[in-house]
Amino acid sequence: MAYLERTPDADVAYRGQSLGTRKPAEAQPSLCSFGAKTAQYRPHEVVYYEGDPADRIFEVARGTIMLFKLLPDGRRQVVEVLRAGDIFGLPNGSEQDCTAETLTDAKVNALDMHQVESSPAIQRQLTRCLVAQMQSLHEHAVLLGRKSATERVASFLMHLVPDRGTNVCVGPVDEANDSRQVKLHMTRQEIADYLGLTIETVSRVISDMKRRGLINVERNDEIRLNRVCAVCQLTGRH
Amino acid sequence: MAYLERTPDADVAYRGQSLGTRKPAEAQPSLCSFGAKTAQYRPHEVVYYEGDPADRIFEVARGTIMLFKLLPDGRRQVVEVLRAGDIFGLPNGSEQDCTAETLTDAKVNALDMHQVESSPAIQRQLTRCLVAQMQSLHEHAVLLGRKSATERVASFLMHLVPDRGTNVCVGPVDEANDSRQVKLHMTRQEIADYLGLTIETVSRVISDMKRRGLINVERNDEIRLNRVCAVCQLTGRH
Repeated sequence: MAYLERTPDADVAYRGQSLGTRKPAEAQPSLCSFGAKTAQYRPHEVVYYEGDPADRIFEVARGTIMLFKLLPDGRRQVVEVLRAGDIFGLPNGSEQDCTAETLTDAKVNALDMHQVESSPAIQRQLTRCLVAQMQSLHEHAVLLGRKSATERVASFLMHLVPDRGTNVCVGPVDEANDSRQVKLHMTRQEIADYLGLTIETVSRVISDMKRRGLINVERNDEIRLNRVCAVCQLTGRH
Repeated sequence: MAYLERTPDADVAYRGQSLGTRKPAEAQPSLCSFGAKTAQYRPHEVVYYEGDPADRIFEVARGTIMLFKLLPDGRRQVVEVLRAGDIFGLPNGSEQDCTAETLTDAKVNALDMHQVESSPAIQRQLTRCLVAQMQSLHEHAVLLGRKSATERVASFLMHLVPDRGTNVCVGPVDEANDSRQVKLHMTRQEIADYLGLTIETVSRVISDMKRRGLINVERNDEIRLNRVCAVCQLTGRH
């Protein structure tokens, strides 16, 4: 981690492409406009641990960050996967309720709680972000509570295709070539921990989708969806 | 549903006893202080449906309300169970993302979105509530993604015992009599839909806990935990 100068942040540009049903949002101010400090992280660095003192709020300026909780016997659940524009670390008490770990190179804006509490503009910004993130958590509860393993993996892949598979999806631009490459930014174990599955089940579903010609595994971290609509049909939304 | 006069609301008193790890909060202003309209509902009345226009925010003043989402084939996931002081209905776009249905007699405060947006005091209040509810959603993701059926039912029962089973639990006041009665306010099917289980599994786990002497089913809607600590040991938190 390395602290940077306070600079207006152009990176919070792809806000809204997160793993949920959030719509691409209008340009919104980043916490940097409010005097946040920016820090850089390498992949798999911990921003804070569950139980750490909670005295600042954080915003993803660039990159991908996961929040996870552990049970005492080591079982892990990734509860949120956050992208640029998402907020995390807001305390309900004095301690963090999750561990925050980067999945990629990441840039994070951090703002002291007392600044947050005194600024109506930050409060408005926060409400907007939190509402969007809560809707993603609702979607995720449906996935964890009611979807099959195939539906979970298909939903995960579809969330990585911006503007497709949501309520506002307009379908393929070119019916004959509806192929899209997605970068996972997560290991099979991390995907399993996010989807409430075992690593074996995730691997089995991916192999099965590959065998059916729905996807190609181009690299360990990159998958090509050969027909986006066909993968979408497996998400349980149809 | 029946609309009432605008009155300061003394019912939002047991804020913090919701189905999560939320701490009993200090006295906080209800939306009524900001001019919200209050409505009364009977059990199993719908406050709004998924897809309804979202132009107001709601606060539970009294009673219990569930938010659920449906998949097109009828599978249902209850994503939140809300108590007095909790906020719902905040839109991320123009439509509600869930259906809100009362579980008990309930009193609900509703406030127009434009009032929310123009008041820093409401914004602060909202942030506090949303953060607490997000932490409950994180806990719920762990339950749905990683807990066994017994752990899920035990966690559900423990959430109904205020001040026990949380990080700040002080243990039983009287070791010899650690028994507590809880009112479920939910049918077996609703519990199943909240815990991501089938109704048969919920009934089987309850019968099993009864056979082991951990609980007594006093009425369909009321369960006595014979030793709170013993049920807590089954939640996966230990």
